[in-house]
Amino acid sequence: MEPDLYDRKCGSRQVLDRIGDRWSVLVVLVLADGTKRYGDLAKRIDGVSQKMLTQTLRALERDGLVTREVHASVPPRVDYALTDLGRSLLDLLSGLQAWATTNLGEVEAARVRYDSR
Amino acid sequence: MEPDLYDRKCGSRQVLDRIGDRWSVLVVLVLADGTKRYGDLAKRIDGVSQKMLTQTLRALERDGLVTREVHASVPPRVDYALTDLGRSLLDLLSGLQAWATTNLGEVEAARVRYDSR
Repeated sequence: MEPDLYDRKCGSRQVLDRIGDRWSVLVVLVLADGTKRYGDLAKRIDGVSQKMLTQTLRALERDGLVTREVHASVPPRVDYALTDLGRSLLDLLSGLQAWATTNLGEVEAARVRYDSR
Repeated sequence: MEPDLYDRKCGSRQVLDRIGDRWSVLVVLVLADGTKRYGDLAKRIDGVSQKMLTQTLRALERDGLVTREVHASVPPRVDYALTDLGRSLLDLLSGLQAWATTNLGEVEAARVRYDSR
């Protein structure tokens, strides 16, 4: 049976939730330019809490989109990178980013019209 | 100032939440083939509650992605359609749908590996 996003029991809905999630999108986009440490990600993604970043990275790792590598240095260093599967998302997620930033003004204008009627 | 998804105060993050949301994606994709009534949407999108569908349609209308037209028939008929802005999302959202259904198997296999280690 083909996966079908319209079917409530299809796991593809969960996959859509993952790849459409705000923090997942931002993490994958930051990792687009190479391996990053946890602290790099936390610094680049303004406003993400430690809890949300940790949860997001764990979910991305579990879904096979990101690898996590712990180096036995002092202090220990933890590196995150995209897998091939994660990289296969880059064009789509850059597209979402571009749409959101390009059309922000139009969306905000629509809200003002809606709220004032 | 250019909108910047990495900045916590930038409204583009809210736009990303909207366009990445599971129910928004499904509604926009169903509307891709033309105007639909509320009941058509409810029937096509298996598992969406009336509350979630109503909230999603209202948010999409407020953000300028969908139009809502009430016809003074008995019983009243409510039609939903994509705006030009909504249509400009179609390629991206079809891309998300295709990615989620194509890669579901690989994501599920990654989860099994993760959970068993």
